[in-house]
Amino acid sequence: MEVERAKKDDDLNAAATAADGGAAEEVSVEKIFESNAEAPPPWQKQLTIRAMVVSFILSILFTFVVMKLNLTTGIIPSLNISAGLLGFFFVKTWTKILNKAGFLKQPFTRQENTVIQTCVVASSGIAFSGGFGSYLFGMSDVVAKQSAEANTPLNIKNPHLGTFSPNSSVNFKLTYPSGTATAHLINSFHTPQGAKLAKKQVRALGKFFSFSFLWGFFQWFFTSGDDCGFASFPTFGLKAYKNKFYFDFSATYVGVGMICPYLINVSLLVGSILSWGIMWPLIDAQKGKWYSADLKSTSLHGLQGYKVFIAIAMILGDGLYNFIKVLGRTVVGLYTQFKNRDVLPVNDRSSPTTTATISYDDKRRTELFLKDRIPSWMAISGYVIMAIVSIITVPHIFPQLKWYHILTMYIIAPVLAFCNAYGCGLTDWSLASTYGKLAIFTIGAWAGAANGGVLAGLAACGVMMNIVSTASDLMQDFKTGYMTLASPRSMFLSQAIGTAMGCVISPCVFWLFYKAFPDFGQTGTAYPAPYALVYRNMSILGVEGFSALPKHCLMLCYVFFAAAVFVNGVRDLVGPKWARFIPLPMAMAIPFYIGGYFTIDMCVGSLILFIWRKLNKPKADAYSSAVASGLICGEGIWTLPSSILALAGVKPPICMKFLSGATNAKVDSFLNPS
Amino acid sequence: MEVERAKKDDDLNAAATAADGGAAEEVSVEKIFESNAEAPPPWQKQLTIRAMVVSFILSILFTFVVMKLNLTTGIIPSLNISAGLLGFFFVKTWTKILNKAGFLKQPFTRQENTVIQTCVVASSGIAFSGGFGSYLFGMSDVVAKQSAEANTPLNIKNPHLGTFSPNSSVNFKLTYPSGTATAHLINSFHTPQGAKLAKKQVRALGKFFSFSFLWGFFQWFFTSGDDCGFASFPTFGLKAYKNKFYFDFSATYVGVGMICPYLINVSLLVGSILSWGIMWPLIDAQKGKWYSADLKSTSLHGLQGYKVFIAIAMILGDGLYNFIKVLGRTVVGLYTQFKNRDVLPVNDRSSPTTTATISYDDKRRTELFLKDRIPSWMAISGYVIMAIVSIITVPHIFPQLKWYHILTMYIIAPVLAFCNAYGCGLTDWSLASTYGKLAIFTIGAWAGAANGGVLAGLAACGVMMNIVSTASDLMQDFKTGYMTLASPRSMFLSQAIGTAMGCVISPCVFWLFYKAFPDFGQTGTAYPAPYALVYRNMSILGVEGFSALPKHCLMLCYVFFAAAVFVNGVRDLVGPKWARFIPLPMAMAIPFYIGGYFTIDMCVGSLILFIWRKLNKPKADAYSSAVASGLICGEGIWTLPSSILALAGVKPPICMKFLSGATNAKVDSFLNPS
Repeated sequence: MEVERAKKDDDLNAAATAADGGAAEEVSVEKIFESNAEAPPPWQKQLTIRAMVVSFILSILFTFVVMKLNLTTGIIPSLNISAGLLGFFFVKTWTKILNKAGFLKQPFTRQENTVIQTCVVASSGIAFSGGFGSYLFGMSDVVAKQSAEANTPLNIKNPHLGTFSPNSSVNFKLTYPSGTATAHLINSFHTPQGAKLAKKQVRALGKFFSFSFLWGFFQWFFTSGDDCGFASFPTFGLKAYKNKFYFDFSATYVGVGMICPYLINVSLLVGSILSWGIMWPLIDAQKGKWYSADLKSTSLHGLQGYKVFIAIAMILGDGLYNFIKVLGRTVVGLYTQFKNRDVLPVNDRSSPTTTATISYDDKRRTELFLKDRIPSWMAISGYVIMAIVSIITVPHIFPQLKWYHILTMYIIAPVLAFCNAYGCGLTDWSLASTYGKLAIFTIGAWAGAANGGVLAGLAACGVMMNIVSTASDLMQDFKTGYMTLASPRSMFLSQAIGTAMGCVISPCVFWLFYKAFPDFGQTGTAYPAPYALVYRNMSILGVEGFSALPKHCLMLCYVFFAAAVFVNGVRDLVGPKWARFIPLPMAMAIPFYIGGYFTIDMCVGSLILFIWRKLNKPKADAYSSAVASGLICGEGIWTLPSSILALAGVKPPICMKFLSGATNAKVDSFLNPS
Repeated sequence: MEVERAKKDDDLNAAATAADGGAAEEVSVEKIFESNAEAPPPWQKQLTIRAMVVSFILSILFTFVVMKLNLTTGIIPSLNISAGLLGFFFVKTWTKILNKAGFLKQPFTRQENTVIQTCVVASSGIAFSGGFGSYLFGMSDVVAKQSAEANTPLNIKNPHLGTFSPNSSVNFKLTYPSGTATAHLINSFHTPQGAKLAKKQVRALGKFFSFSFLWGFFQWFFTSGDDCGFASFPTFGLKAYKNKFYFDFSATYVGVGMICPYLINVSLLVGSILSWGIMWPLIDAQKGKWYSADLKSTSLHGLQGYKVFIAIAMILGDGLYNFIKVLGRTVVGLYTQFKNRDVLPVNDRSSPTTTATISYDDKRRTELFLKDRIPSWMAISGYVIMAIVSIITVPHIFPQLKWYHILTMYIIAPVLAFCNAYGCGLTDWSLASTYGKLAIFTIGAWAGAANGGVLAGLAACGVMMNIVSTASDLMQDFKTGYMTLASPRSMFLSQAIGTAMGCVISPCVFWLFYKAFPDFGQTGTAYPAPYALVYRNMSILGVEGFSALPKHCLMLCYVFFAAAVFVNGVRDLVGPKWARFIPLPMAMAIPFYIGGYFTIDMCVGSLILFIWRKLNKPKADAYSSAVASGLICGEGIWTLPSSILALAGVKPPICMKFLSGATNAKVDSFLNPS
C-alpha cells in the first residue's frame, strides 16, 4: 500500500495536468478567475451546509470503496479525482435545482469545491489510515489464529464498535489524510472550458459507475457458496487457478490498473509470477522435508509462513532503502536551504529552486493564504493537548501500551514528522508506514512479549503512523488550498469535520463488513485483509525474534531483503530512462501473499489504457481517470447492498461452479443416479 | 428458415445500397468502369484457377458456418456479403503478393469476383438446401426415435457418407442456391472509393472474426459435460433457464440478430415468450390429465408433441397464406404482362414498370449478357436428362419412392417453378419449402404408410424443393451476372462447379458433425437439428393423419393455424406502416420447439445495432454487416477444430456448472466430506 500512497501525487498531477490541458502553468490562472470578477468568499462562507451534506454522502460512498480495497488487497489508488468530480457534480446539480426553484443564494465557488474535496478525502482516508486492514485488525483473534504465535489473550483485541470509535477519534483527530494537489483539477473545473470537460467526465464516470455496479450485482447471483461465481473463474485453467492465476472479472481492479502506472502493474505481475508461478510450487515440493506435511494450509509454520515472511522481508528491504535515501536527501536539502536562506513560509516545500521569481499567481495566493493562516501557537498547543489526551486515554484502550511509550512517541514524532514532510515534499514519497513499522519493532520489543508486546507494537504503529503522516498530509492539503485561494481556516475546519465524520463512518462500515461476511479476514476468502496478517507478524517478529519462522525461511528472507535493496539501488543508479523497465520490489511483494489474480485484473486495466491511448491519446488522457473511478466506485458501492443482503440472510440463488472433467462426471452421477 | 430465405434479398439490397452509398443508381456504373478502360474479359478468362482455389477454401469455411446454423436453430441469415468481402480480400491479397513477386499476369476483375461469389454461395448453399438439417436428417433413426411413430425400418434411413454423396450429386446438379443480387456490392468493391471501404470492412470483419473464434475457443474449455459452459449460463436465473430463457453468449446468434431485421428478432422473442413463458408451463400443469405423466420428456405424445405440432401448424398456416397471396399476385402480374406485351427477356422480372426508358447501363449489360447466353434448347434438354437420371437413380437410393412419383414431380415442377420464380421476382418471397411441404403430404399419402410413405414423403420433398428453388435462384443469379457484366456461361459453370464442390464438402462436414458430437440431433443438446424433427412429423402427419397427436393438441393446432393466417391477413390489411409492429407468425413458430435462448442472443444483436445506429448511423450502416458476418463466421469456423478435437477424443478440461444454492451445498458436502 505504501506504493500507492507514494505514487498518488504523481498520478494526480499527471491527470490534473491532462485535465486542464497543461495550460494552467503558462497562463495565469488567478488572472482568469479575477477577470470573472470572482473574489474568494470569506472563510466562514466557504464552509457551507450544502458542502457538508455533499461531503457526508460522498464520505460514506468512498469509505465503502476504500474499505473494500483495503480489505481485499490493500492497494488503494488515488480517488481524489473522482471525489473532486463527484463533489463538483453534486453541488452543481444542487445549485442548478435551487436556481431553477429561485432559492439560490450563493454561487458554487472553487473554494467550496476544495472544502468538499478535503473533507471527503479526510473522511474516507480514515478507512485506510484507521488501520482497519492493517494494524488494528491485526489485533483480532481472526488474524491471530492464522499467525499461530503469540495467541495469548494479552496479545489479542477483537474489534468492537464501542472500542473502535473512541480509539479512532483519539488517534485521528490529528489525521488529515493526503488531500494532495487536486488544486489544478478544481481550478480547471471552475473555468468555462473546464466545467464543460468536467461535465463530460462526470458523465463518463456515471456510465462506468452504473456498469460496474450492475456487473457487481449480476455477479452476486452466482456466488452461492465458496469458490463460486466469477471471482473464482479459472480463466487460465484449473491448475493456474489453484496457484491464484486467474482473471476474476473485478471491475474494481481493472479500474485500479487503469489509474496505477504501468510499472506498478507490471511489477505486481512479475512478483506474482515469481512467487506463485515459481517459488511457492518449488517450496511446496519440499513439503515434509522443510516443514511438516500435516500442517493446515493456513499455518505460518508451513508454506504460508514463507509467503508472509518473504513478503515482509521485501517490504522492509524496500522501506529501509527508501528511508535512508529520503533521509539523505532531506539532510542535503536542509543544508542547502539553510545556506541560501531564501525560504518562503509556504511555497518552499515543493519548489525550492523556482522561488527566485515570484509570479502573479504566487503573489496573490500567498497574500490571501497568509491572511487567514493558523497561528503557530495554536498549532503547538493543539499538539500538546492532543498528546496529553492520548497519553491518558490510549493506555485505557490498550493496557499493553504504557503511558511512557506514548510520551516517547510524541516527543520523537515531531522530528520524524518534519523529516517525512520535508522528504515527501522533495521526493513525493511518504514514508509514514515505514515509521509505523519502526514503532512496531521498537515499542513491541520495549514492552516485551510477556506484557503483550505484539499488541503494544501494533497500537504504537497506529499512533506513530498517524502523527507522522499528518504532518506531510497537512502540508499537501494546505498547498491545495493555497492554489485554489481557499482559506487555511476553512481547510483546517473541513478536515477536522471530515475526520470526525470518518471516525463515525469508517468503524460503522468496517463493522458492516465484519458482521456481514462470516469468513472475513481469513486467507483465501473474498476479504482476506492481507495487511492485517503482515502487520501482526511483523509485530511478532519484533517481539519474539525469528523463532517463528520455518526452515530455510530466514535465509530466503535475507536473500529477498537484500534483493529489494539491490533492485532499488540499481533503479536509482541507471536513471529514470532505464528504471522504468525495472520492477519495484515493494509492488512485487504484494502478490506474494495474496496471489496473482488481482494483478491480472490490473494488467487488463493497463492494457485497456494502453490500447485506448494508442487509438486516441487526448481522449484517453482526459477520460481514463473518470472511467477508472467509475469502475472502482461502482463495484465498491455494490458492497453496501451486498453486505446488507448478507446481514439479512439473503443468499444468492445460484452457484457457478468450476469442476474438472473427472470431478464433474462424479458430481453428475451423484446428482442423477440412474 | 423460410423467413430468412425470404428476407435475404431485402437485407442484401439494403446493405449493398448502404455500401455503395446509394449512388450507383444515379450515376451510370458502367460508364465509370468504361472510363477505367476495363473491358470485361471473355468468359473463359473469368473462370480462373485462383478464383476456383479461393472458392474452394471459402466454400469449406461457409459450409461449416451454414451447417452449424442449420443444425442449431435453422435460421440462416444472408452470408453473401461476407462471402463477397472475403472473396475480394483473398484474391486482392493473392494478386498483391503475385504483383510484388512480379508474377501477376491478370488483374482482378469484378467478373471474377462475381464468379467466386456465385461459386461459394452455390457450394455452401448445399449445406442448407441439401436437407441435412431438415428432410434428409429427418429420415434418420435418431430423429425417428424422438417421433415415436412410424419407426419401422421401412421409414428410416440413416446417414452414411456413401449414400449421401451420390444422393446429393443427383439431386443437386440442378441446384444453384440463391446467388441474389450482390451485384451492387461487387460493383462497389471495384470502384476506387468502394475498394477503400471494402478494405476497411474486411478489417472489421477480420477483427470480429478473430474475436468470435477466440471466444468460441475460450468457451470450449468450460464445456466438459452436459449443461456446462457459457451455453448453459442461467443469465436470468435457474427457473428461466429451465424454460430455455437465457443468454447463451453465442457470438454467432448475436451476429445473426444484427443482420436480421428488428421485426424478425422481436417476432422470435414474442414467440418464445408466448410459448415457453406462457403456453408450455400451462400445458405442463395438465400433465397426467391431458397426457400420461410417465412419458419421457422427448416423447411426442407428451409436452413435446404440443411443441412440435403447434409449431408445424403455425408454419403451415403462414405458408398457406403466403402461397395463396403470391399465387394471386402472380396470376394478376402475368395477366397484366400478357396484356401489355413489353417484355424484355431478362430484365422484366424485377422491374416491369421501369423498362420504358432503357438506360445506358441496361443497354450495355443486355448487349453483353445476350452475347454469351445459354441457348434454350440446352436448358430444356439438360432438364430432361436430369429428370431421366433422377427417375433411374433415386428409387435405388430410396426404394420407397417409386419412379412414377418422380416422373410426376418432374412434370408438375416446371409449372410450380415458373410460378415460384415469377412470384419471387414480384414479392422477393421464395416459397420453395412450401412446395416441398406440399410434396411431403401428397407423395407421402400416395405412397401410403405401409410402403414407407414417411420416407417417400421426405425424399419427395427434397426433389421438389430443389427443382422449384433452382428456377428462382437461377434467375436471381443471372441478374447478378447481368449487372456485373459477368458472362452467363461463366456464371453457369461456376455455379455448377460450386454445386459439385458443395456435394463433396457438405456431406463431409455433416459427417464430421454427426461423428464428432455423440448426442447430435437430440432435442435439448447443442445440435438439436430442429427442422429434421419438424419435417419428419409433417410427413407422419401426412401419412398417418392426426392419430399421433396428444389430447387437445389438434384443437390447439387449428387455433394456431388460424391465428397465423389471421395475423398475416392483418399485416397485409394495415399496410407496411403498421405491419412493422405486428410479429411474423413464421418467425414466432421457430422458438416454439427449440426454446428462447437464441432469440435472446438475436435481440442482443438487434440492441447493439440499434444503439450503434443511434450513435453513428453512417458507420453502423457501412460496417454492421461486416461485423455481424465476422461474429457469425468466427464461431462457426471454431466448430471445425472443436469437432476435430471431439473426434480425437480430447475433452475440455473444466466444467462450468450452475447449481442452485441447495444443490451446491449437497455437492460441496459430497466432494469434501468432513
